[in-house]
Amino acid sequence: MKKLINDPRSVVDESVEGFGLAHAGLVTVTADPKYVTRKDAPVAGKVGLVSGGGSGHEPLHAGFVGLGMLDAAVPGAVFTSPTPDQILPATLAVNSGAGVVHIVKNYTGDVLNFETAAELAQAEGVDIRTVLVNDDVAVEDSLYTAGRRGVGGTVLVEKIAGAAAERGDSLDAVAAIGDRVNSNVRTMGVALTACTVPHAGSPSFDLADDEIEIGIGIHGEPGRHKIPMENADGITDRLLDPVLSDLGISGGEKVLLFVNGMGGTPLSELYIVYRRAAQVITERGAAVERSLVGNYITSLEMQGCSISVLRLDDELTQLWDAPVHTAALRWGV
Amino acid sequence: MKKLINDPRSVVDESVEGFGLAHAGLVTVTADPKYVTRKDAPVAGKVGLVSGGGSGHEPLHAGFVGLGMLDAAVPGAVFTSPTPDQILPATLAVNSGAGVVHIVKNYTGDVLNFETAAELAQAEGVDIRTVLVNDDVAVEDSLYTAGRRGVGGTVLVEKIAGAAAERGDSLDAVAAIGDRVNSNVRTMGVALTACTVPHAGSPSFDLADDEIEIGIGIHGEPGRHKIPMENADGITDRLLDPVLSDLGISGGEKVLLFVNGMGGTPLSELYIVYRRAAQVITERGAAVERSLVGNYITSLEMQGCSISVLRLDDELTQLWDAPVHTAALRWGV
Repeated sequence: MKKLINDPRSVVDESVEGFGLAHAGLVTVTADPKYVTRKDAPVAGKVGLVSGGGSGHEPLHAGFVGLGMLDAAVPGAVFTSPTPDQILPATLAVNSGAGVVHIVKNYTGDVLNFETAAELAQAEGVDIRTVLVNDDVAVEDSLYTAGRRGVGGTVLVEKIAGAAAERGDSLDAVAAIGDRVNSNVRTMGVALTACTVPHAGSPSFDLADDEIEIGIGIHGEPGRHKIPMENADGITDRLLDPVLSDLGISGGEKVLLFVNGMGGTPLSELYIVYRRAAQVITERGAAVERSLVGNYITSLEMQGCSISVLRLDDELTQLWDAPVHTAALRWGV
Repeated sequence: MKKLINDPRSVVDESVEGFGLAHAGLVTVTADPKYVTRKDAPVAGKVGLVSGGGSGHEPLHAGFVGLGMLDAAVPGAVFTSPTPDQILPATLAVNSGAGVVHIVKNYTGDVLNFETAAELAQAEGVDIRTVLVNDDVAVEDSLYTAGRRGVGGTVLVEKIAGAAAERGDSLDAVAAIGDRVNSNVRTMGVALTACTVPHAGSPSFDLADDEIEIGIGIHGEPGRHKIPMENADGITDRLLDPVLSDLGISGGEKVLLFVNGMGGTPLSELYIVYRRAAQVITERGAAVERSLVGNYITSLEMQGCSISVLRLDDELTQLWDAPVHTAALRWGV
């Protein structure tokens, strides 16, 4: 295992500390219990947004803390849910009185721990809504999950619900927007290589030199099947077809196309995948109105990608375009 | 070799085509000869900025085309200089009459081909200045280079000279700003793994499982030495010390700290490197006033990073902060 780390036990502490130093004007890092908040939190009158999950998916979630997106991110150990005693103080720190939305990827540990934290926060008088993200069409139930997993769609939920909160929507309205994004986005991923969790020290699953895993989860948990290596267009079709059919995209619709890198794949390859996906969507009579290409929800140094398609309407498009100022996504400000 | 590609011969064509589709509002892609221009080029009265080089370093350079940065990028084959018959039409396309600055990384092929294109453009009446970037402190002379190589500092030269052009500086003034950035930035990199050029099909150099290469070039060309794997703080010190001493940074100075990923290293690890580098700079009495952390000048899927330090003055800071709207760097707009 060759990694730019000092000690497998201090990876998250040191990485988050470095993140705080690099973005000191934007975020505040609380070390123990560990969470990251928007510098100006709580923002008076605004609904607070909190997300979190295991580390190893950077820039998710801390990279999305800031104006127009999350108010707080709660990083667990690598590929391990954060605990309620992290989530609770993060929730309290961003509550201005307007209530807090928890954005939770659908993994058993995350769901349980956010639920516990929500109960504790409610006991302290904070109104909580939860948006569950479960956009992965690859599998029903999996290692760590009952139901579908939350993957790439999470980035889009956080951006768009964050914009709704920023424009002053109520607690219920922000949660409803988050749910609407989740209902209209589907994702599927592929792994070309495995990744190595620092404290494990060896790859978390096996892939032969000529093999790829279609439908991979963001922790390297099994997908649909392992198949021999194929070319980029073939792989793109294998990911995009189930996404489009599950979403029921038809001619005349507008979509956002998000090609996400798993962490170890060159950007140039993501654009080759984007090219094919955009061509296929266009051939089917839908229009790619917005795009996002890059490493936004990763699996350490895994090579591979995921494709997410979000059905857009005018309001979602407007919220996507709204100003955002975070470490990893920024425009309009 | 497992890559998300269709054919090693079409990697650059398809990737640039995908880039053009994803950022259709921002750039125009010309297919043959291949170059990428800012959508609104030529911008009346503005000095044009053109850069380019071998592909495989994405988002450099096409990802930096747009308001406040480059007017055109010219991608060669992977790790291969673009040709004069690409550079010339890109130069003509962005010339509004105010002249064009070529930003050239110091590699023999790039220097020669940009020189030829500059002569041809001048013969057509376009005034050209060239800013040569040679910020790599690792080695003097190398595979592909006489003198120091141009590496991470290129991103900072393009951003800051781009801002100078955008505010209306003259041809000579934009070139002078570019030279000033180059004189005040130093960089050194490390490789944990090699990378594989698609048409070669096998790694471009050898590194044992417990070995890293200090002072690596962005094409995997040799650095200072191979050493046994070390921890992140130790590696950071090995990169940062020569950078700071060559730059002659002393107490009271202000710097921009840029930790760049080589393409295959998780963002979380880059922040661990950033943490140590920021601590060391602070201990030496200098102040980190601006930061950039991420994959901006890469070597395909290579694992590793580079550290760049730029000595800031008020004008360079102001130009760094100026609005930029490109695929890979965006703020203020």
